[in-house]
Amino acid sequence: MSDEAVPFDDRGLAYGDGLFETVLVRDGLPLLWDEHMARLQEGCRRLGIAFPVRRCLDELPAQSGAGLQVLKLLLTRGSGGRGYLPPADAEPRLRWRSAPFVPQPARWADGVRVRLCDLTLGSQPSLAGIKHLNRLENVLARQEWSDPEIAEGLLCDCRGHVIEATSMNLFWFRGGRWETPKLKECGVAGTLRAGLFGVLELHEAMHKQDVLFEAESLWLGNSVQGVWPIASLVDSAGTLLRNWSVPSLDRSLQAEAHALLGYPVPA
Amino acid sequence: MSDEAVPFDDRGLAYGDGLFETVLVRDGLPLLWDEHMARLQEGCRRLGIAFPVRRCLDELPAQSGAGLQVLKLLLTRGSGGRGYLPPADAEPRLRWRSAPFVPQPARWADGVRVRLCDLTLGSQPSLAGIKHLNRLENVLARQEWSDPEIAEGLLCDCRGHVIEATSMNLFWFRGGRWETPKLKECGVAGTLRAGLFGVLELHEAMHKQDVLFEAESLWLGNSVQGVWPIASLVDSAGTLLRNWSVPSLDRSLQAEAHALLGYPVPA
Repeated sequence: MSDEAVPFDDRGLAYGDGLFETVLVRDGLPLLWDEHMARLQEGCRRLGIAFPVRRCLDELPAQSGAGLQVLKLLLTRGSGGRGYLPPADAEPRLRWRSAPFVPQPARWADGVRVRLCDLTLGSQPSLAGIKHLNRLENVLARQEWSDPEIAEGLLCDCRGHVIEATSMNLFWFRGGRWETPKLKECGVAGTLRAGLFGVLELHEAMHKQDVLFEAESLWLGNSVQGVWPIASLVDSAGTLLRNWSVPSLDRSLQAEAHALLGYPVPA
Repeated sequence: MSDEAVPFDDRGLAYGDGLFETVLVRDGLPLLWDEHMARLQEGCRRLGIAFPVRRCLDELPAQSGAGLQVLKLLLTRGSGGRGYLPPADAEPRLRWRSAPFVPQPARWADGVRVRLCDLTLGSQPSLAGIKHLNRLENVLARQEWSDPEIAEGLLCDCRGHVIEATSMNLFWFRGGRWETPKLKECGVAGTLRAGLFGVLELHEAMHKQDVLFEAESLWLGNSVQGVWPIASLVDSAGTLLRNWSVPSLDRSLQAEAHALLGYPVPA
């Protein structure tokens, strides 16, 4: 079975020693599949986990049901070892599950309300960018608010640079350029972000919170939800920091992103 | 069953959203049990996980076999939730397993060879001290060496302060004082370390690597292995940095630690 339980001695469970991907699948065809596989492979390289036979992975999306699905792949290092030292012969363990997905077109069109999180991301270049199973920072940040009107929370690193949202990458348009934070020390390098580098002139940049006030527009995106404009930004106490007039925004990044995902672009 | 498998949607597996303890148990009686329960409770408080009924936990050590055992407790937030946001009604999942344990008296007596790790620990005050399931830093650091003659690796934070070893706390004797690193930004606050504060004048201090060369002695300890003197220190390339004459060392910290664990003190 694809999503069967994982034994007590699995290192993914014991130490978060593994990786995951959440893939948008439409009628059995995965979106941004090469980007997902590239990130999984890079994660395996960094953690020293054997990358599964690609052909076996390639067969999974077709097993998802009809319509729009999210396929979650979970790859752990496998069982055992003496404490933190992995066994030399660890056999990676692969699990997967598909679930129907419904996107949120109103968020594509009208944008979202976003807050600044209090938690700051720790710096760990060895783990930055990859989608490993050590996600407590994201869990803690997401627990900071419960108001359903707030769609996402922005996270900075400990030096005050804006990095990402809890489960989406951040983009902005400023001075005629599309930019997104560099993710060399923390953050997850999303596959939609990776795909956008191939179709848009997108620059990596490190900026403090000033950029949130100076940018002409802010956008959040990932490979499942697509791209949402930010319509309003509040601080962690809920005080409004800035509004944007969403109807007047340049939607070119959203258009490129939605072309990659097969989503429409709001008029 | 105590150590049954964990479902695909368990958040401990998905995000490392949980905690663990490894407890030394002698003939059904746990050592440093109050310290283990205090750390688990503090971990639950920080992550927002309901602490299990203490009476149920208290019954587990007696179920371990005769002789010396290590009881591993694993507590996850439970199943489900929409991405990183935990479900409001998450039911924590507890698993445990005992395994026979054999300590290493030669390491107590003669000490160990230790290396400096290249990996530096990220700073995350929200997670520092507790024994959560996000342990990839420890796994990566432990993968830096395979030489069985090297017993442990020392880790510094990104500002160069000495913090801990991959699975043990660090102590030193210097200028007539016993000291151990402060663990406010990273590291795991061991239960043996916690117990030692009650029986020894032990001071928390932040020092860079200079302290490794200035200290009269260095010691590693945890609640399972007891306390090992460091006999030699090498850099990450294997070059010897310093030796200690172990037979001449003041063993008072080891004596107090081993009294807490029921281990003998080498002559």
